[in-house]
Amino acid sequence: MYEVEVKVPADLEAVRDRLEALGATRKRTVVQADTYYDAPHRSFPETDEALRIRRESSDGGDESRITYKGPLLDDESKSREEFETGVDDGETMDAVLTGLGFEAAATVRKERERYGLEGYTVTLDAVDDVGEYVEVETEVSAADEVESAREGAYDVLERLDLDPDDQLRTSYLGLLLES
Amino acid sequence: MYEVEVKVPADLEAVRDRLEALGATRKRTVVQADTYYDAPHRSFPETDEALRIRRESSDGGDESRITYKGPLLDDESKSREEFETGVDDGETMDAVLTGLGFEAAATVRKERERYGLEGYTVTLDAVDDVGEYVEVETEVSAADEVESAREGAYDVLERLDLDPDDQLRTSYLGLLLES
Repeated sequence: MYEVEVKVPADLEAVRDRLEALGATRKRTVVQADTYYDAPHRSFPETDEALRIRRESSDGGDESRITYKGPLLDDESKSREEFETGVDDGETMDAVLTGLGFEAAATVRKERERYGLEGYTVTLDAVDDVGEYVEVETEVSAADEVESAREGAYDVLERLDLDPDDQLRTSYLGLLLES
Repeated sequence: MYEVEVKVPADLEAVRDRLEALGATRKRTVVQADTYYDAPHRSFPETDEALRIRRESSDGGDESRITYKGPLLDDESKSREEFETGVDDGETMDAVLTGLGFEAAATVRKERERYGLEGYTVTLDAVDDVGEYVEVETEVSAADEVESAREGAYDVLERLDLDPDDQLRTSYLGLLLES
């Protein structure tokens, strides 16, 4: 499975109007608080690893997940090991990590409003202290479908009056730490 | 809340017969596999901490929990911080810990058959590579009730033809590591 994802800064109000005009399907809105941890024995920025607890709230209730992203296995494909599982209580999981010597380094909070449009998921992100962004994404099963899926994502951006050339390659965590 | 707990080696078959004769209530039987981890940056035996993933199976299904036990806060009361939360998938949680540099040090596997008898929980433990033990436990709400609760537990042991003087103070993990 290959994930194709393009993210650009945007005025969400204007994008919302365009989505409505294009007949996009509104999906559920979630609020996510992602806490990233520093390790006591390694520098994650140097090893390119990440440890995160995500707390997500929506109409369906609250849920928490822990995620570990390993170092890049291969520069070319940007592939890495990733392990994620749900936890019953995010606060207790934070207490376990803190007890072990991990320290919360930063928390990214965002509201994510999702729409479906022509096989793509369009997500309107309002990120605390960072700004407003629109992400267009889809999944394809084969490597040779990636390029046309990316072209399709650019096309969706243009129909939303957004410019694919504004594409942002920094993570929200990176933007928050730079701010 | 104070936990009163007494554990002695036993022939489980004989204890089972005694429990039946005494009209004890049979509760659910569970199988637990407790994996304890070594840390990459501290010696848990020295700091007296513990990190464990417990996988428990019963008629009710499988569940996993992660537990961190902090160092003793106070030698007198043996009190320590403990944080525990359920995780959706124990194998994935193990992969997260392993990715972070923690190493599975030992796994204690046991079948626990529980009975209720006169306000006490009697647990028949068959511990792989360690042996058979019976644990009698109860909880009281005040410190001055501990002594009589302990006397009551000794009394239960005697009614099961077991000797309170055989009391074991080593954990199953300790016994497994010694074996």
